[in-house]
Amino acid sequence: MEKICPSSKILIVGLGLMGGSYAKALSLKGYKVRAIARRQESIDYAVDGGFIECGWTEVCDEALDWAEFIVFALYPQAFIDWIAKYGDRLHAGTLITDVTGVKSCIVKKVQDMLPESVEFIAAHPMAGRERSGVEYSDEKVFSGANYIVVPTERNTPHAIELCKQLGEELGFYRVSVLDCESHDKMIAFLSQLTHCIAVALMCSNDTPGFEAYTGDSFRDLTRIARINDEMWSELFLLNKDALLAEMDNFIDHFKALRQTLANEDRDAMRAMMRLSGERREKFDKPKA
Amino acid sequence: MEKICPSSKILIVGLGLMGGSYAKALSLKGYKVRAIARRQESIDYAVDGGFIECGWTEVCDEALDWAEFIVFALYPQAFIDWIAKYGDRLHAGTLITDVTGVKSCIVKKVQDMLPESVEFIAAHPMAGRERSGVEYSDEKVFSGANYIVVPTERNTPHAIELCKQLGEELGFYRVSVLDCESHDKMIAFLSQLTHCIAVALMCSNDTPGFEAYTGDSFRDLTRIARINDEMWSELFLLNKDALLAEMDNFIDHFKALRQTLANEDRDAMRAMMRLSGERREKFDKPKA
Repeated sequence: MEKICPSSKILIVGLGLMGGSYAKALSLKGYKVRAIARRQESIDYAVDGGFIECGWTEVCDEALDWAEFIVFALYPQAFIDWIAKYGDRLHAGTLITDVTGVKSCIVKKVQDMLPESVEFIAAHPMAGRERSGVEYSDEKVFSGANYIVVPTERNTPHAIELCKQLGEELGFYRVSVLDCESHDKMIAFLSQLTHCIAVALMCSNDTPGFEAYTGDSFRDLTRIARINDEMWSELFLLNKDALLAEMDNFIDHFKALRQTLANEDRDAMRAMMRLSGERREKFDKPKA
Repeated sequence: MEKICPSSKILIVGLGLMGGSYAKALSLKGYKVRAIARRQESIDYAVDGGFIECGWTEVCDEALDWAEFIVFALYPQAFIDWIAKYGDRLHAGTLITDVTGVKSCIVKKVQDMLPESVEFIAAHPMAGRERSGVEYSDEKVFSGANYIVVPTERNTPHAIELCKQLGEELGFYRVSVLDCESHDKMIAFLSQLTHCIAVALMCSNDTPGFEAYTGDSFRDLTRIARINDEMWSELFLLNKDALLAEMDNFIDHFKALRQTLANEDRDAMRAMMRLSGERREKFDKPKA
């Protein structure tokens, strides 16, 4: 495969929200997309919706021989287990990628298990929904979002380039490249810590009737409190050290703000608020 | 005044974002609205925009004699100072209300200072913008939002009723009634704590370039980090005890979540996530 283009044969392994959204985005661009999924219903749904040509509920040579590019849209441990079990059946020259939200503990492990002739180039599509399942898949989740290619020293420039092309074809707003460690630190702060905050906040107060007085600030902050506990607990544990460091750092700053209030030190409080406001300016969403 | 209706003469004191939004909402319904503001430019802007009939930059008898209902749209301490200085010039029979975001430390103090013949019925319009100034005023901020009437034992049923009518006329989604203490506890959790979290989060990490990887969860959680430090520091200090209690409670729950990660206790972590998700269900925005 010289270039990602509609004649490329792309196999999606795992037809949940993310796998389904990949299939939709790519088939809308005319790509040949097929899938391996656990449930026949998911395959039927995707075939009926016109976003895969066909699919299999078991790993089989027919699927693996057909594929030029495989996207693993599985939970992290399921991805590792799949490679351990079926990795040596992958066709020489096949390029594989993933959608996993943590990298340090995944990428090298998978690369170590694969045959020399099969290259794994990791990627993290930073997009999602507070729902799971192929029924909620939607190619529009990628618009305005970030796609990060996470290579190691074992990846070829060609594979990195193809993986970047895939992110562009999917319709991401920005495609960039980070090493595993930088990726995991970034994701600990920007994504995992925010989910921890939302969960802790929802758990911290259950006064009956408060929902009647809720405004947009509370709603926006806790939108992500409706969390997929199976997936996120796995991601948190796989990024434990980086996430603990960010949690501790956040506690320190939260306590510092608390202390300005306890001390009635209005100047120090206002200084933190102004710093917060200045930093937040940079994070506004790019105009579509 | 028997009932709030377009013939009621409403004076707004303070033409910022909130005073301006009150003036817009009421004048659009045909009310007679006038204003006292510090800056002539604010009055000119509001007269030109057709949302006040006229205004004054000084407190004067002409304004106070005209008004049947006065809305104080000032910061809390400025409101108290105003009443201390001019309260005894208010006309007998005038009803006054406010927009202050904290109540326990304001309402009784103001009621104590006023002449017997002037009734103050407190209210909190839970709406706003991350901007200040009459140029950003917009009657649409009230749509879908909560308006809370906060009476004391010194208020008459008639004044409470008129104040509720005002909230309805302004276009709020829900008008309800709370006592001062319940209001301040609620606001400490639902509003002030969320602002503290957003500020502390923004202060806790300044890695260059992180904004390039930001997704919607971080953006939504920190939208309110762009905070008016003058107003919010005043509100925090005026609700110090209730807010400190909520901050401490949040820290406890955040640390409990941290401990599940440190202990790799996935079951306990998932239990917190599920509790969070279940509770969050109740807080969805009412369909318009």
